[in-house]
Amino acid sequence: MTAPCHKIMSANNDSPESRPVYIVSDGTGITAEALARSVLSQFDVEFRKIRLPFIDNAEKAREARERIDADNKGEKRPIVFSTLVKPELAAILRQANALHLDLIQTFAEPLSKELGMLSTHEIGRSHQSPQSSGYKNRIDAINFTIEHDDGQSHRNLAAADVILIGVSRSGKTPTSLYLALQQGIKVANYPLIPEDFERNALPSALLPFKGKLFGLSISPERLSEIRNERLPNSYYASLENCRHEVAQAEAMMRREEIPWLSSTTKSIEEISTAILHEIGLDQRE
Amino acid sequence: MTAPCHKIMSANNDSPESRPVYIVSDGTGITAEALARSVLSQFDVEFRKIRLPFIDNAEKAREARERIDADNKGEKRPIVFSTLVKPELAAILRQANALHLDLIQTFAEPLSKELGMLSTHEIGRSHQSPQSSGYKNRIDAINFTIEHDDGQSHRNLAAADVILIGVSRSGKTPTSLYLALQQGIKVANYPLIPEDFERNALPSALLPFKGKLFGLSISPERLSEIRNERLPNSYYASLENCRHEVAQAEAMMRREEIPWLSSTTKSIEEISTAILHEIGLDQRE
Repeated sequence: MTAPCHKIMSANNDSPESRPVYIVSDGTGITAEALARSVLSQFDVEFRKIRLPFIDNAEKAREARERIDADNKGEKRPIVFSTLVKPELAAILRQANALHLDLIQTFAEPLSKELGMLSTHEIGRSHQSPQSSGYKNRIDAINFTIEHDDGQSHRNLAAADVILIGVSRSGKTPTSLYLALQQGIKVANYPLIPEDFERNALPSALLPFKGKLFGLSISPERLSEIRNERLPNSYYASLENCRHEVAQAEAMMRREEIPWLSSTTKSIEEISTAILHEIGLDQRE
Repeated sequence: MTAPCHKIMSANNDSPESRPVYIVSDGTGITAEALARSVLSQFDVEFRKIRLPFIDNAEKAREARERIDADNKGEKRPIVFSTLVKPELAAILRQANALHLDLIQTFAEPLSKELGMLSTHEIGRSHQSPQSSGYKNRIDAINFTIEHDDGQSHRNLAAADVILIGVSRSGKTPTSLYLALQQGIKVANYPLIPEDFERNALPSALLPFKGKLFGLSISPERLSEIRNERLPNSYYASLENCRHEVAQAEAMMRREEIPWLSSTTKSIEEISTAILHEIGLDQRE
């Protein structure tokens, strides 16, 4: 299989001048990469990120060290964010000539003192095991959420943790999937459509579950942009129609006292966090 | 809206003895929570996690400080993982009597020295902006992936970055959604069904795209368990049928030289990382 190189290049600032950043993990490196992105976003520099996952034995640690040293152009030595829980693997990696930022050890030491105990140094404990009940919840939530996307099914709505409503393209589907996949929350989502506004009532299937409803709105201008990408120059996508639908949807949510927020300038992560916070589910594992 | 408290309680070890862990962020706190989970998983102690997101002004920082101090039971003072990029907010939080682990500052300082520049201290740079092209890619990928779940559509398969294949319930849907949502990768997924094994050929719609195929397999025992939850005591779920389907699917993938892996003991994150690594897409932002 060939890798689509143009994507790697363009997305990654892969110019010779950009500073290499290695993410080295004995697991997936997903958490390490997210933290690296947060920290690096504080600096106005171009970085070229390389993730080296599953570095879980001495041989792979030596290969990682060699790869990092081979990428050392002298003036701009690599930056290494690592989460290797085995001290012997961390020690091998640390021989690479780089700025080493050890995400586990840095915090495990003060924690160890505070808790009065040693860390277990066991690999693979940071993600849920596929055998755990938390993991099973997530898979169940994904299946539920897919089945209940876009008002597809009224079946078993009582099992939903949340039912998202909003006009077409207000961000319901991505938010629903994020909540299911990352938080194990069963989400149904229902579009509010022109017929609902004409009847001036919520979709009848939702009436028994009013306490689970949460609304997403969006600015008419942004909505029109998004809809125009899918159906250019349609009435559906026109600013006039978007203004009408959004005004109707917001009036309905206000009248029915449904909590809602605007997705216009928010990422999926921000919308999801705000919803969890609002409905009191954010303490959940 | 009432929060389903039993879930919060059961998932969160909310006993009076468990040590409180606060995740305090000026953004969502998602990254901070993931790192906290990784680090804490190295200790055999019960923790009670409380996420305080969107702490982005002095008043909210003071409220967070007060909440943490009110939760201090003396012997087991709270642990605070924080990502506050504004030094003045971090300073307010640090007045709380707790073990403070500052995920940004800890690494921003050595980075600042290494790079020879100051950090920008700008809030909200860690997640992609909804206006960025990377964010738009993710939303497009989610829409594509939902439309192409479970062989639903042959339309525009040429636009897929990856096409996952495997027997029913081998993990294709959650993996597809994870790759789309987190990595912006357009994934189609196709079930391998008994008719394909009888014809002894891949689904014909996939033949033009053989270079994009990636297989998921699973142990027959685990597959039978998963299928029995959906259709108890069916032939579909029987160990005998699962053995047959898995053997046929693996033989087909070997013969067609399609790269594949077993999802049996892997989490979605691990499967996704392994696929990205294998097909060379893991360098992508």
